[in-house]
Amino acid sequence: MSAQVTGTLEALRERAPLVHCITNLVAMETSANLLLAAGASPVMAHAQEEIAEVVGAADALCINIGTLDPGWVDSMTAAAEAAGETGTPWVLDPVGCGATAYRTETAGALTARQPAAIRGNASEILALAGATDGGRGRGVDAGADSVEALDAAGALAESSGAVVAVTGSVDYVTDGRRIVAVANGVPLMARVTALGCALSALVAACIAVGEDRLSATAHALAIMGVTGEVAAQAAEGPGSLRWRLLDALDRLDADTLTQMASIEG
Amino acid sequence: MSAQVTGTLEALRERAPLVHCITNLVAMETSANLLLAAGASPVMAHAQEEIAEVVGAADALCINIGTLDPGWVDSMTAAAEAAGETGTPWVLDPVGCGATAYRTETAGALTARQPAAIRGNASEILALAGATDGGRGRGVDAGADSVEALDAAGALAESSGAVVAVTGSVDYVTDGRRIVAVANGVPLMARVTALGCALSALVAACIAVGEDRLSATAHALAIMGVTGEVAAQAAEGPGSLRWRLLDALDRLDADTLTQMASIEG
Amino acid sequence: MSAQVTGTLEALRERAPLVHCITNLVAMETSANLLLAAGASPVMAHAQEEIAEVVGAADALCINIGTLDPGWVDSMTAAAEAAGETGTPWVLDPVGCGATAYRTETAGALTARQPAAIRGNASEILALAGATDGGRGRGVDAGADSVEALDAAGALAESSGAVVAVTGSVDYVTDGRRIVAVANGVPLMARVTALGCALSALVAACIAVGEDRLSATAHALAIMGVTGEVAAQAAEGPGSLRWRLLDALDRLDADTLTQMASIEG
Repeated sequence: MSAQVTGTLEALRERAPLVHCITNLVAMETSANLLLAAGASPVMAHAQEEIAEVVGAADALCINIGTLDPGWVDSMTAAAEAAGETGTPWVLDPVGCGATAYRTETAGALTARQPAAIRGNASEILALAGATDGGRGRGVDAGADSVEALDAAGALAESSGAVVAVTGSVDYVTDGRRIVAVANGVPLMARVTALGCALSALVAACIAVGEDRLSATAHALAIMGVTGEVAAQAAEGPGSLRWRLLDALDRLDADTLTQMASIEG
Repeated sequence: MSAQVTGTLEALRERAPLVHCITNLVAMETSANLLLAAGASPVMAHAQEEIAEVVGAADALCINIGTLDPGWVDSMTAAAEAAGETGTPWVLDPVGCGATAYRTETAGALTARQPAAIRGNASEILALAGATDGGRGRGVDAGADSVEALDAAGALAESSGAVVAVTGSVDYVTDGRRIVAVANGVPLMARVTALGCALSALVAACIAVGEDRLSATAHALAIMGVTGEVAAQAAEGPGSLRWRLLDALDRLDADTLTQMASIEG
Repeated sequence: MSAQVTGTLEALRERAPLVHCITNLVAMETSANLLLAAGASPVMAHAQEEIAEVVGAADALCINIGTLDPGWVDSMTAAAEAAGETGTPWVLDPVGCGATAYRTETAGALTARQPAAIRGNASEILALAGATDGGRGRGVDAGADSVEALDAAGALAESSGAVVAVTGSVDYVTDGRRIVAVANGVPLMARVTALGCALSALVAACIAVGEDRLSATAHALAIMGVTGEVAAQAAEGPGSLRWRLLDALDRLDADTLTQMASIEG
């Protein structure tokens, strides 16, 4: 699968998928810039008055509940519904699921609307799967290790029909049958806000151009992880890592990606 | 006109105009930082409870519909109305006009409230002028080339009374009679989100200190474009371009600006 | 007190306090990244549906009125109330207090709910103390010098029970009895948006791990100021200062902090 990841990166750059993001207020700019650096085209829109039109024009949708409130949840729900009607693939990022009842309920209700993929950390996936209470995680950071959420991810994939990605020191992607492990990235990435959110938007972009959701999701994780590794070589801290990630993704070449991508399964 | 552009930059730094921005959620930080780097002073405020007071204190206003919703449109409308009463010049950035009916309607309604200037890409200006349906542009990126929107820009300038700027590989500014062409900037700028939005805020700042709107708008485009060219000399991608733009604008000197600015008409 | 400041930095890194921020739309990403670089853990949440739960889980709360509107003010009020019930210390950043009646009223009402600390520039503190009309400051920048607001800060501290920090070229912190002066930082920091807002979040983080509020607040100001001085050594403008601040804070060591911190009183 390491060889195919370059195909996904090339497809992003050639087809420049339009990715509609309904994301949180912290992650908006980072998500837009990551999509642009990957070759995709972002559009942010949340008004009920235009949701269906934007979803209809988009190649994929990313819904992120990081700074949810009732108005935005209505928009997310309308977008998910519109995506169901048009067959637009969409990704759910259940930020903070398990940390508050409101987030858990909202993430659960959105999951019922058939996302193509769900990406979260171990705490979030555990909570969303109902396997545990998610440890009442510290904010939106992971508490548990990703491997601890593997069974929950599989169960969630089966019950929801979504490909489920649990990200951590090693990332796991599963459709309930196959499991793919992606071992890329560096710990410093967790010290930059919204990279996980932006990654979810990249998953949406890759699904838009990919042949199957499981591979496309794994490819997005590998592209992000390899980009982080390259950026970290010259970074002196989280501030420089943040902008170096965009430069590295913009310049990422097929050889480097093939050589560095660690995708198994 | 290339000589006069340095006068506008000096005026920005000496007079530090207060620019009230009602802008989109992606562009807020970038707009504030660009204004600060230019010597202006940003203020973001959208509550009906204070709109008139903030407009009254400001030297210029920038309204950007990038992440519009009914509450924000009400604020934009109130701000445009207040600006009309106080004679505060204001700039409209019709982000995504033509991409959805809601954006086209909102941009049209705001245009009727007499902005001093309108800045958009070719698709947006074409759609706003009603000359075409804007090609149902891909998100908020330009589809058409700027020169293709030149007639539409002229018609829009005449009908609205605004100076209209169409930005692209070459930027055009017109008041319906004169046309000024600004040939600065680099393609990499289009790979950084919200630079167009921040440019619209800079247009507002320049109009606040400039003698005539047409020149001030052209000067803003030239200052931004030259800044981008300088930043791009050392940038290794969109991530480094983004912060280098702020450094370059902060350090931009009169000689460099005069020498590099390409303003004709 | 210069020696103790290293204890606060170490405590931030060891205990990683969870800091709940209800902050403005410009400052969200910068605040989150500054907290992460300091070793703290940010969470942004504003929905009434989860405010009490998030406050209950947090070690400290920061409320910033920079882009207030009635919905957000309701959230801020609910959060302050919840913090009062759980004994969670919280910091108020009265952005633009004095610039509009709405901001002055909102800041006043929040001050009545017993923040542990208040951080603002001279204009804001003067306005909040009712000592003057705050000069109807230019946007959210300081007009007056910090020392001019020292009496007002003392009066505000006494009347509110909060530790009050007035930041400027020299920062002053007072509980109405003691006054601590912190003389760190560089002027270029004022050319980067939202650093003051992010500093208020850092004050909240330090109070969460500190032994007394006065010292913790002074330590936060010194940590931020020293970080700015270190970052400015290599910065070439506001763009590079912004990311270098995060790198510098991440790498700040006890010796550098002890040597450079200028805390008196």
